[in-house]
Amino acid sequence: MNTAAIVGVGLIGGSFALALRKAGFTGRMVGVSSPAAIRAALERGVIDEELPLEEAAASADFLYLARPVERIVETIRAIDQYVRPGTLITDAGSTKLAIVEAARQSIRRGRFIGGHPMAGKETRGVEQAEADLFQNRPYVLTGQDVVLEDWIERIGARLVVLTAEQHDRLVAVTSHLPQLISTALALLIAEEPDAARVAGPAALEFTRLALSPYEIWRDILSTNAESIDAALGVFISRLESLRSKLRSAALEEEFEQAKRAAQALRGLGGHQPV
Amino acid sequence: MNTAAIVGVGLIGGSFALALRKAGFTGRMVGVSSPAAIRAALERGVIDEELPLEEAAASADFLYLARPVERIVETIRAIDQYVRPGTLITDAGSTKLAIVEAARQSIRRGRFIGGHPMAGKETRGVEQAEADLFQNRPYVLTGQDVVLEDWIERIGARLVVLTAEQHDRLVAVTSHLPQLISTALALLIAEEPDAARVAGPAALEFTRLALSPYEIWRDILSTNAESIDAALGVFISRLESLRSKLRSAALEEEFEQAKRAAQALRGLGGHQPV
Repeated sequence: MNTAAIVGVGLIGGSFALALRKAGFTGRMVGVSSPAAIRAALERGVIDEELPLEEAAASADFLYLARPVERIVETIRAIDQYVRPGTLITDAGSTKLAIVEAARQSIRRGRFIGGHPMAGKETRGVEQAEADLFQNRPYVLTGQDVVLEDWIERIGARLVVLTAEQHDRLVAVTSHLPQLISTALALLIAEEPDAARVAGPAALEFTRLALSPYEIWRDILSTNAESIDAALGVFISRLESLRSKLRSAALEEEFEQAKRAAQALRGLGGHQPV
Repeated sequence: MNTAAIVGVGLIGGSFALALRKAGFTGRMVGVSSPAAIRAALERGVIDEELPLEEAAASADFLYLARPVERIVETIRAIDQYVRPGTLITDAGSTKLAIVEAARQSIRRGRFIGGHPMAGKETRGVEQAEADLFQNRPYVLTGQDVVLEDWIERIGARLVVLTAEQHDRLVAVTSHLPQLISTALALLIAEEPDAARVAGPAALEFTRLALSPYEIWRDILSTNAESIDAALGVFISRLESLRSKLRSAALEEEFEQAKRAAQALRGLGGHQPV
């Protein structure tokens, strides 16, 4: 890789640029973004220069699309005519089916591999970018590519290869469901004027995701509605099952199972925080 | 206060003892607990000496009951014959109705005020105790008492006075509901063998409470089943409402409302972590 172009220099795009640098990338780092983001990214040394999308696409041999899902789809539909043959294109979109399908239809000259780093914050913007954001976090790719896999590992992420379908079904449970739970719980707490007075660590932790911006979630929810709907259905029946056993000793087995599952989730990563 | 007796020297009881000391309590600190807990508490200097319950009750002018709810109820039913007239008795049980009702029936010589510090960890035991555990956390009392209120404020907690009914209804939403959500989500993730491979920060955060021991939750759920059942009902209908709008722009308003609620929850405390 000689020239990398980051399209969308926000928290994720900016962090990926910083992570590439830290992992030994010595080429040119080009940014495509809003004037404010470009200014901040240049100031922090996240990118070397700004270019319009067409020129960035034409000069890069690596394109990293880090925008909301629908804007990634738009970019993919527009970009192929500008890229050089063989250009590696990947993205950081939160759902993969719509994006991979758009790439299948529109990317001819470049080669496209869908991606999704399982990292983030509730705060946005390149000001929040960190070279270590992907450390020990899963990084999903929807296909295999030696160059890209090598960089994913060099930035310290845990490579996971899945089909777009598998990815979208799994993140519906592990990521999209927690977001909706957090939103629903925050709405519930808002209805109880005194609830805020007794809110302990659990209430704070479980409403943290509710701070996330809707602009990002609109695309995620609409492009993965089917899997999220299914996950919500199973989750609600799990809750109803617990609800029916509140006074029963049968609850112990469910608590023990859940505990083992939560422990297994932590054992896997090794470096995950409790 | 000359002699304080901590009945149940675990995470909460031990932390309260350390907090009292740090806040300037210079009297004798007596512990009533299992041999292992007493040994660890003496080693860490959390208590000065061990006594059996009857003797501790007879020699203390302040009794702090920090056991699971049902054991606090048992202790309250047994203890009044041993205490000196006017002894201040409080507890740290997670639900308040069953405890306050037992005290109303059984405490005659002592004076009882129910309590609940909104602080904790998933790990247990006096080894985890911290003098600062209650700092900036709500501390609910079910009645008014000048001496107790003064100590609550000196240990850095935020005093909240509520009836037992109000307390149990509110914590059903802010604490018991998050626990059941976490348990249900961990069970769901356990059913998806590949989910652990893509689990990001949200999945880890939302399954943390599922690590909590059932021994504590059994009593909480059974003594607050009615309020928890009601909270689950409203929460499920909130989720169903979000579910019906996954592809709709109407979701934006709910996200914005939830965001304002989550922000308000943080604004109130001032020193709460995001």
